[in-house]
Amino acid sequence: MGLLRQFDLLLFFTGRSFCVYLNSAMAEIRENSVGIVKTETIRVVEQDEPLELESGKRLGPIDVAYETYGELNEAGDNAVLICHALSGNAHVAGVSGPEDKKPGWWDVMVGPGKGIDTNKYFVICSNSLGGCSGTTGPSSINPETGKVYGLDFPIITIADMVKVQKLLLDKLGTKKLLGVIGGSIGGMQVLQWAIAYPEFVKSAIAIATTTHLGAQSIAFDAVGRNAILADSNFSDGQYQGAKGPDRGLAIARMIGHITYLSEQGMRAKFGRELRGAESYSYDFNSEFAVETYLDYQGQSFVERFDANSYLYITKASDYFDLHKDYGSLEKAFAKTKSRFLIISFASDWLYTPSQSEDIVNALVASGKDVSFCNIASDYGHDAFLLEPEILGSFISGFLDATHRPGVKRKAEYKIQETKYKMQPHRARVDYELIESLIGPDSTVLDIGCGDGELLANLTADKNIKGRGIELQQELVLACVNRGLSIIQHDVERGLENYADKSFDYVILSQTLQTVKEPKKVFKELLRVGKRVIVSFPNFAHWRCRVQMALFGKAPVTGQLPLSWYDSPNIHFLSLKDFDEFCDKLGVVVEDKIALSKAKLSPVRFAPNLFAEQVIYVTRRD
Amino acid sequence: MGLLRQFDLLLFFTGRSFCVYLNSAMAEIRENSVGIVKTETIRVVEQDEPLELESGKRLGPIDVAYETYGELNEAGDNAVLICHALSGNAHVAGVSGPEDKKPGWWDVMVGPGKGIDTNKYFVICSNSLGGCSGTTGPSSINPETGKVYGLDFPIITIADMVKVQKLLLDKLGTKKLLGVIGGSIGGMQVLQWAIAYPEFVKSAIAIATTTHLGAQSIAFDAVGRNAILADSNFSDGQYQGAKGPDRGLAIARMIGHITYLSEQGMRAKFGRELRGAESYSYDFNSEFAVETYLDYQGQSFVERFDANSYLYITKASDYFDLHKDYGSLEKAFAKTKSRFLIISFASDWLYTPSQSEDIVNALVASGKDVSFCNIASDYGHDAFLLEPEILGSFISGFLDATHRPGVKRKAEYKIQETKYKMQPHRARVDYELIESLIGPDSTVLDIGCGDGELLANLTADKNIKGRGIELQQELVLACVNRGLSIIQHDVERGLENYADKSFDYVILSQTLQTVKEPKKVFKELLRVGKRVIVSFPNFAHWRCRVQMALFGKAPVTGQLPLSWYDSPNIHFLSLKDFDEFCDKLGVVVEDKIALSKAKLSPVRFAPNLFAEQVIYVTRRD
Repeated sequence: MGLLRQFDLLLFFTGRSFCVYLNSAMAEIRENSVGIVKTETIRVVEQDEPLELESGKRLGPIDVAYETYGELNEAGDNAVLICHALSGNAHVAGVSGPEDKKPGWWDVMVGPGKGIDTNKYFVICSNSLGGCSGTTGPSSINPETGKVYGLDFPIITIADMVKVQKLLLDKLGTKKLLGVIGGSIGGMQVLQWAIAYPEFVKSAIAIATTTHLGAQSIAFDAVGRNAILADSNFSDGQYQGAKGPDRGLAIARMIGHITYLSEQGMRAKFGRELRGAESYSYDFNSEFAVETYLDYQGQSFVERFDANSYLYITKASDYFDLHKDYGSLEKAFAKTKSRFLIISFASDWLYTPSQSEDIVNALVASGKDVSFCNIASDYGHDAFLLEPEILGSFISGFLDATHRPGVKRKAEYKIQETKYKMQPHRARVDYELIESLIGPDSTVLDIGCGDGELLANLTADKNIKGRGIELQQELVLACVNRGLSIIQHDVERGLENYADKSFDYVILSQTLQTVKEPKKVFKELLRVGKRVIVSFPNFAHWRCRVQMALFGKAPVTGQLPLSWYDSPNIHFLSLKDFDEFCDKLGVVVEDKIALSKAKLSPVRFAPNLFAEQVIYVTRRD
Repeated sequence: MGLLRQFDLLLFFTGRSFCVYLNSAMAEIRENSVGIVKTETIRVVEQDEPLELESGKRLGPIDVAYETYGELNEAGDNAVLICHALSGNAHVAGVSGPEDKKPGWWDVMVGPGKGIDTNKYFVICSNSLGGCSGTTGPSSINPETGKVYGLDFPIITIADMVKVQKLLLDKLGTKKLLGVIGGSIGGMQVLQWAIAYPEFVKSAIAIATTTHLGAQSIAFDAVGRNAILADSNFSDGQYQGAKGPDRGLAIARMIGHITYLSEQGMRAKFGRELRGAESYSYDFNSEFAVETYLDYQGQSFVERFDANSYLYITKASDYFDLHKDYGSLEKAFAKTKSRFLIISFASDWLYTPSQSEDIVNALVASGKDVSFCNIASDYGHDAFLLEPEILGSFISGFLDATHRPGVKRKAEYKIQETKYKMQPHRARVDYELIESLIGPDSTVLDIGCGDGELLANLTADKNIKGRGIELQQELVLACVNRGLSIIQHDVERGLENYADKSFDYVILSQTLQTVKEPKKVFKELLRVGKRVIVSFPNFAHWRCRVQMALFGKAPVTGQLPLSWYDSPNIHFLSLKDFDEFCDKLGVVVEDKIALSKAKLSPVRFAPNLFAEQVIYVTRRD
């Protein structure tokens, strides 16, 4: 639970009671901590062989600060790189010494048995180029002048940062990355890694990130930089030894912090609470809790971060634009070879879920192996630091599936019933019959695939290449843990990023009658799949007819068990209705299997009267 | 179309072509402009009789700058007060002279034939207390020191501002306000007016406002103030004659501007467009269009606004909290006597729609006369300046209905078909029968009331007191123009703010079968109304039964004309189903009128077989 971030708050809010919390938390930290770690520094670029940057300028020497945890295995296939965000550094996990009470910035995620398990993986993280925690940046000494670079440091880009990370890995002898993982600006680096070094990266986990900042985010960055540049103590970045642009940097950080939290999160955390008073002070001192929180965040940031680095790294994030660099996102991702896991957070308004969906859509359109979940969280952008449990489950499942490839028929992940909304279940008979209809070695898109059982069986039995779409987070997580490619998506929003006839089969089982616009959905399926397999309950089964015709009541049967006011079914159709529907749309019905109860043997006589459910195999004319 | 705001943009973006735009626009402005106006100043508080402020401090003298347009009529009942927002002033409309190219800040709304029609109304606007455009504020001279007040100016509140406005109106001899209108911080003043002077205010139009800022908005304000206070040129507000805190004020304004626009609006307006270049400049100059836009906004603000006023007015908005002042919103509004029109904008994330709904809910809970619409707009908070057409239609309709009271049976507002989404229409026979069921002088809530025809007829014929709920903006507008109290709301979200049995009748006509959770909705109606009148199509009509039983098809009839895949009906029920449903819920069916086709005479024989639709009158046991 974002222990360390919350410590900041606790320290700030509770004063004396802080120690108690800290001690109990330290005990927890020790148990599954990587322990005492040390940041190393290595020169990756020499002064006489400078690196050519994206801007065309040259930079050298370049030193990189980094930490590693865990051991590279003999096969050399368990290396995981973590890319940090704006204000992070190489110190991801563990503590610097026995007295260090503040573990690394993602200690909740990295350690023995944690989301990124240091018992299994060899984890590397380096301070990014332009940073201020050991890697060469604008506050390093300019060898040409003997003074710090300041504004003479060349503008760097995300691609430059990744290039330097690659130089580090080469120095360390790493031949391949099992995964590269990062959130926010770190997520940009993840995407850049997959694009720049397709052979090197087996999987890419990009969290709460984007392929380009929108106008609003650029605006926030620009105002933050303005606050620094406008500070009379900035002195073109040559403020070392003097009072630096602390006020400007603090204001930039305050703006940042507002954007990292969500409105609902701030409301829940602070509301209009006053600090230490019942009534207003009628002056300009900070009195609302949220004001003192921001003061504290601004102040503590000034103590640990450098204004020059703030300028350069935010500028690098503003410049990141895969669309501009490659012409389109599809082209940007065209040569990637990694599996992708894209994660967004529902309340993140800085790097929005729809920006993550743009990444997913482009990867889907390029036919890449991508999974996606928009995690329900009120923590806003900061959720990537504050939701270690759910995020850790996704990361560990995905990394494991990459490390031990293959789809697992038997689910290893146990669905937490509390997090799972009961839905009309697919009938087992449905599964078995649908499986029998699918040809070997085909490609299959299963819509509303649940925990992925059908896809897993099809993969094991028929060697299909399967993709899933599912709406419920808990089921999406189950699919990721099975090793399936699964996208969280509502089929009612369309499938526009899937190419025509991109699957041999598209399956929609027991769902057509529950969607708002069945015609629109069905037409999309027919476009995307060479064949569409649809199953639904037959509303003209004789029991329904009898209840309706003789008793004048909305039917309630074994197959349609809920009353008219409780039913999730919002469209009622019979075999005859569907036949006419297909006819009208010019759709060929290749096969039609009418079923009675849970029997595999089809109903042959008067199916529209005796079938309780039906499976259609259809295709466009 | 927010001409003047857009001029800023045009000027900024187009350079030379600006003149062309301006000339054509000036022609337009002259036609329906209030013409050349002059800001007057009047002393409302003398130095020796200072005003006691909410903080307990005393302030005097107080001068107020104001403008008026139009004429007070003989009855003295056509005065309209406009309250401006943070950076506004008394100069709402018209120009200061023939050479003045920049009309008042809400010229699009105020003038002959405009939303606030100066041919009909006597319009007053004053610069608010604490401002910097003529009314006493922190940059006025402190009579005790002979220097400007600066930070010695007492903290003022929204209530103080309104008190000073009242003093102005007293001086002007205004006895009553037909309406008080304002957006944003001006909207806070509107609410305060209705509460502080209930006898004085006939109607209150509060636009894009709130009863209290949330943590996020306080945070943005606090950072803005921080930027000013941190500016080394601020000098405790005593910067007159010297270089003032221009950089700090510009940063505050930039932050403000980001919050006034919506993310989608910024994306559409700026995207990632670069100013004057194809490729990045690789330096820290402003290069994205949104950066130069913000620079321009910051700079032009510095030229026309005062940093001290920025501090005091934002603080006043932070302090505004009706809940804190009165214990609850219901208590705050308890003694108000005005009609209320509450308007929010869908993309406003600074003063959100849900904050407006809180106002509406409290007014509903207090049984007040309130109308509400959340206007669809991408302009964010700024929409109150940039959507004059739709906003003007609401304001003019509401003011007119307040000025000429009574509900209009014949609609004067012509519904624009393009803005109106066709819905399953209520059958006329429904209307006539329902009207016959309602007792005279009763109170009626009509849910999904459309353009308000039924309520208008009931008002005219039976002298009922009616309230409407409707989802479609265009229909809400039609109702406002009829003089009805209408709230834009989705009944599926519940009616929790309506007290138990607060209406004699609640009507839900031809809608039950289209809602997702009919049980939940019906139970809410039964709680709120002493009687609930529900009508719906009978799904067990013999034609349906025949189609279903004999042909095995989902029914398509005159009453149910759409195919299974197109139907908005998502629940199917018969008279018998509804009887059983009422029985199960313990609901008494007082009356049941089964109807065949469009005949008023009821079906008496086997209604579940022969009725095409049915009207139930029900109540809780």
